[in-house]
Amino acid sequence: MQLKRFKPGMLPDYGLFNCDRLSAVREEVQYSLRCLPSPESFLPRVYNRNRNTVIAMSDIYEKIMDLAKRRGFIWPTSECYGSVAGFIDYGPLGSMMKRNIENAWRKFYIIQEGYYEIECPIIGQEDIFIASGHVKGFSDKMCQCPSCREFLRADHIAEAHGVTGASVLGTEDLARLICSLPCPACEEVLGPVEVFNFNLMFQTAIGPGSQRRGYLRPETAQGMFTDFQRLLRFYRDRLPFGAVQIGKSFRNEISPRQGMIRLREFTQAEAEIFVHPGEKDHPAFSRYEGYFVPLLSITRQEEDLPPVNCTMGEAVREGTIANQYVAYYLALTHQLLVSIGVNPDKLRFRQHLPDERAHYAEDCWDAEVFSDRFGWVETVGIADRTDYDLRAHERQSGERFSAFIPYDIPRKESRIRVTPDMGALGPRFRGEARAVAEALCASIPGPDGLTVTIGGKPVHITPDLYTVKEEISEVPGTDVVPHVIEPSYGIDRMIYAVLEHSYFEEMVDGEERRVLRLPPGIAPVQVAVLPLMNRDGLPEIAREIVDGAREEGVIAEYDDSGAIGRRYRRQDEVGTPFAITVDYETREDRTVTLRDRDSMRQVRVPVEGIGSLIRSLVEGRLSFAGL
Amino acid sequence: MQLKRFKPGMLPDYGLFNCDRLSAVREEVQYSLRCLPSPESFLPRVYNRNRNTVIAMSDIYEKIMDLAKRRGFIWPTSECYGSVAGFIDYGPLGSMMKRNIENAWRKFYIIQEGYYEIECPIIGQEDIFIASGHVKGFSDKMCQCPSCREFLRADHIAEAHGVTGASVLGTEDLARLICSLPCPACEEVLGPVEVFNFNLMFQTAIGPGSQRRGYLRPETAQGMFTDFQRLLRFYRDRLPFGAVQIGKSFRNEISPRQGMIRLREFTQAEAEIFVHPGEKDHPAFSRYEGYFVPLLSITRQEEDLPPVNCTMGEAVREGTIANQYVAYYLALTHQLLVSIGVNPDKLRFRQHLPDERAHYAEDCWDAEVFSDRFGWVETVGIADRTDYDLRAHERQSGERFSAFIPYDIPRKESRIRVTPDMGALGPRFRGEARAVAEALCASIPGPDGLTVTIGGKPVHITPDLYTVKEEISEVPGTDVVPHVIEPSYGIDRMIYAVLEHSYFEEMVDGEERRVLRLPPGIAPVQVAVLPLMNRDGLPEIAREIVDGAREEGVIAEYDDSGAIGRRYRRQDEVGTPFAITVDYETREDRTVTLRDRDSMRQVRVPVEGIGSLIRSLVEGRLSFAGL
Repeated sequence: MQLKRFKPGMLPDYGLFNCDRLSAVREEVQYSLRCLPSPESFLPRVYNRNRNTVIAMSDIYEKIMDLAKRRGFIWPTSECYGSVAGFIDYGPLGSMMKRNIENAWRKFYIIQEGYYEIECPIIGQEDIFIASGHVKGFSDKMCQCPSCREFLRADHIAEAHGVTGASVLGTEDLARLICSLPCPACEEVLGPVEVFNFNLMFQTAIGPGSQRRGYLRPETAQGMFTDFQRLLRFYRDRLPFGAVQIGKSFRNEISPRQGMIRLREFTQAEAEIFVHPGEKDHPAFSRYEGYFVPLLSITRQEEDLPPVNCTMGEAVREGTIANQYVAYYLALTHQLLVSIGVNPDKLRFRQHLPDERAHYAEDCWDAEVFSDRFGWVETVGIADRTDYDLRAHERQSGERFSAFIPYDIPRKESRIRVTPDMGALGPRFRGEARAVAEALCASIPGPDGLTVTIGGKPVHITPDLYTVKEEISEVPGTDVVPHVIEPSYGIDRMIYAVLEHSYFEEMVDGEERRVLRLPPGIAPVQVAVLPLMNRDGLPEIAREIVDGAREEGVIAEYDDSGAIGRRYRRQDEVGTPFAITVDYETREDRTVTLRDRDSMRQVRVPVEGIGSLIRSLVEGRLSFAGL
Repeated sequence: MQLKRFKPGMLPDYGLFNCDRLSAVREEVQYSLRCLPSPESFLPRVYNRNRNTVIAMSDIYEKIMDLAKRRGFIWPTSECYGSVAGFIDYGPLGSMMKRNIENAWRKFYIIQEGYYEIECPIIGQEDIFIASGHVKGFSDKMCQCPSCREFLRADHIAEAHGVTGASVLGTEDLARLICSLPCPACEEVLGPVEVFNFNLMFQTAIGPGSQRRGYLRPETAQGMFTDFQRLLRFYRDRLPFGAVQIGKSFRNEISPRQGMIRLREFTQAEAEIFVHPGEKDHPAFSRYEGYFVPLLSITRQEEDLPPVNCTMGEAVREGTIANQYVAYYLALTHQLLVSIGVNPDKLRFRQHLPDERAHYAEDCWDAEVFSDRFGWVETVGIADRTDYDLRAHERQSGERFSAFIPYDIPRKESRIRVTPDMGALGPRFRGEARAVAEALCASIPGPDGLTVTIGGKPVHITPDLYTVKEEISEVPGTDVVPHVIEPSYGIDRMIYAVLEHSYFEEMVDGEERRVLRLPPGIAPVQVAVLPLMNRDGLPEIAREIVDGAREEGVIAEYDDSGAIGRRYRRQDEVGTPFAITVDYETREDRTVTLRDRDSMRQVRVPVEGIGSLIRSLVEGRLSFAGL
């Protein structure tokens, strides 16, 4: 994930994702509603500053979170002890959906792109994060209210009261600014408070006696960087290559308040693609050359224009996107997000503005997903990070982080070779003769000879004291520190977006139907098998169908409890795309009713081969309408 | 994982797995070799004490670790900064193999058993681990050498010098015992040292100002316990049900020295099955009733007998295994381990001895896998933990951890109801009349009345002051705190065991062939596709075959570098079960050579349909011999 790593010249953007700035402001806004007479007066300004549309708050978030809790998608963690903010449990259905999304991600990055996954530890030693800049730069400006002892984000307080750019101010400036403002928690005026930097990494000690400081990784990326030499050898020393990792990352947020959007423990899927700095054309660019992506470029943001659909070929040709690699992963990300159930009308790719982009990055884009509750939420970041990360580890570790790239044809390089005439130098310089000879070998003399400094004094060496020859040598290749293209996905935010975009309420036969229109490959249950009655051999046939479907790799659930209509509704609510009903006819002719979640249409199909039929439907090789 | 949670009455067995005791001793032995004149003299005794066969050390561990590093299975973590003991990276092939093993595990527990997976955070709040006993009891006895400042396991030092049962001694006794012994690191006599308890949980702080103490979970199990009420509702309030979790767990080992066997960060796969305490017959027991498992029962251990093969039905009938649930998961574990590549001749199930079993556990067994390097290594633990965990959380949280179980037919229960005669009590007891009446209602009087204590004084109430009636009421069911059956798997140890048991060296045509005979479903690459030459259209056909295989869900790799024989050897070494060679004949007749890793036999098969052919071979629905 770019930006949050290290941005010399400005404070790091500590946000897990870019929308944090908006969310943070919105959080403060909600806080401030308690103490300010007319909060609406600054709402539009705040939103506008963040280039986000002002939208009416709706209760869809509450509805989804209620459903998610009730049906086992998302649970508060260790609820019996009072949950801790910033941590969630994935319940049975949520965990299944999460794995489906992770596997969908793997289909793109591992199967399509051919990159290998690695798995590095969560606890990392300090050196890694000194190199990455997290030890120094990964912190928030904080203060503690002297009245209520609540810990507060100092910059958020300032921003909520109209100070723009508070996050880039120094601690003392911030302290001065907020001393006359009320605490958002207890409403007392803060007065003189200390503002300090709070590092967002969770810290721990490895081994006894606090011998070694360790941190919980704030991103999975560093593992791919520290393993660079091993990976290079695995890929037989050829560029480009990629490595990916899906795993937990951690950020010790001061006071997370946005459910699944800002978590202290979250899942990332990151790819690091190591490319030759001079070769940023993607070898398979033709795949996405004509693919349209809604782009909100720097120019369009500056001119307050909406995103525009643009093919990747065009965007690279026009220079909107820096190179084919970045464009390729923008398109792949668009395709991936839509395939898992993100509404394409609520998806845009926003380019980082010059003041938010890291100084070393060549280009950065965020895939932003629109949420009724949270506005535009950064969900994926795609950046060309150049050689910044590898060079940082090279400096910190003293190890080599480069690849030896052979030239197609070994290059001939000429070299000037100076040979001192020791027989002449000895008598002339005596004790200093060796030093003079060494200085000669290390220089290229001019036509009149050369002046070198020996023992602090200038010494002139005339051309008669040496010979000069040009030598031609063959150079087989060169050491190159690769550039890194990094697409970085926030899995939890993707899950939330998919839930929100899939949730629909509609009236069916005078009753409200709640339905999650999840893509079949993502749904936690892919087929429900329902015996009409809990007797007369129907359950046995139903169980047999469940087993057959599972053998085909389909996630099948058996449900025999309640009226059939209620069972359909229950499955609709968790997004089960298909339901099979086993009834008395099934005993006669071995056919069952197959119901489609979205159209609610039903067709009669034979029991034989129904597992592979469902599999074809789930994989999209067959459509229900075609049955 | 049983035992390491809490064992009142004795020190907790902090070992991640049970073999820790052996490994720990062996570790000390290796240490001691440096300072003792004749280490061989006590080696057999040590081994014998642990009921382990003395085996010749071989270099197979070094060979496997070399292969694992070189080919991208296992890498030292953050090597460029000097790796930290107890942490490893899974490289590209290791990570793939790990996912294959995790998915094989899911096939058993999720698809076959029908339990749902959940995902809880790694960081947990303190209350969870106060309840589980980890805050108090999860620690090692430690000391620091005053000469070299090395941190040492005090009990290991004592054990290496012949003290038996050192791990159950108190800190002061241990300090007295070791003061005359040499430090295993610097060989100086330790002298008077302090022995103290070191908690093995990694600790951290959640939020700023160290507001809230957090721990990295030492096992995944607690998440399933704290989510019990949510899970119960998800399963519609019926017992039995199960929940599983695969994820990282952490133990801050003092000085881990056994590669993949003792890690500070490791992956567990745990299942918690909640059953009615009175119903421990597994509903699908018939599946494993006739299944043979090599059992090393308490009796056989006490009589120094080897394990004996026994069917699960017999073992339960004879009382060797406490109940069908435990037996069922013993058999399932045997089947699972063998299916992923554990050699059945190097696998045994050892029952916990009375002194190592937790006091609350009804029965505990370890699946132990034999390693040339580490001896018998505990890899899976299977325990009937009774209601210990749920009751512990009930006490700590004050919440309910029980299920309401309706009776088949509501039971009639008679209840004695005492009705005070207030008209008589009032005048007699005046101000104390109400207290007397309440005491009456809460008691069952005898024939002569009842004596209660009111205001500290005994008060006799005669039968004329109340009436007694028997009432019959209907009771629909009862609250039950379920018992927990817990199979707990160490994924990293399973991976190591499979690598060790799969590794073979053999002479082929006068050359050594190294081969990993991994089961096809576990191999990190399932088919290699090799164009004979890197030209003439052969690479294109090969890539087409790779794509086709991947579409079938087969992990396929393209390799065009080096002589064909070398490529075969390279694939043999990483366990690729099948290789397809595309040659000039392929262009003529669209057939390719399909090679079997184990027999090295080759057959000619058509390109068409080869993806699904490989899939059938990988899934075991087809055998190579039958082609």
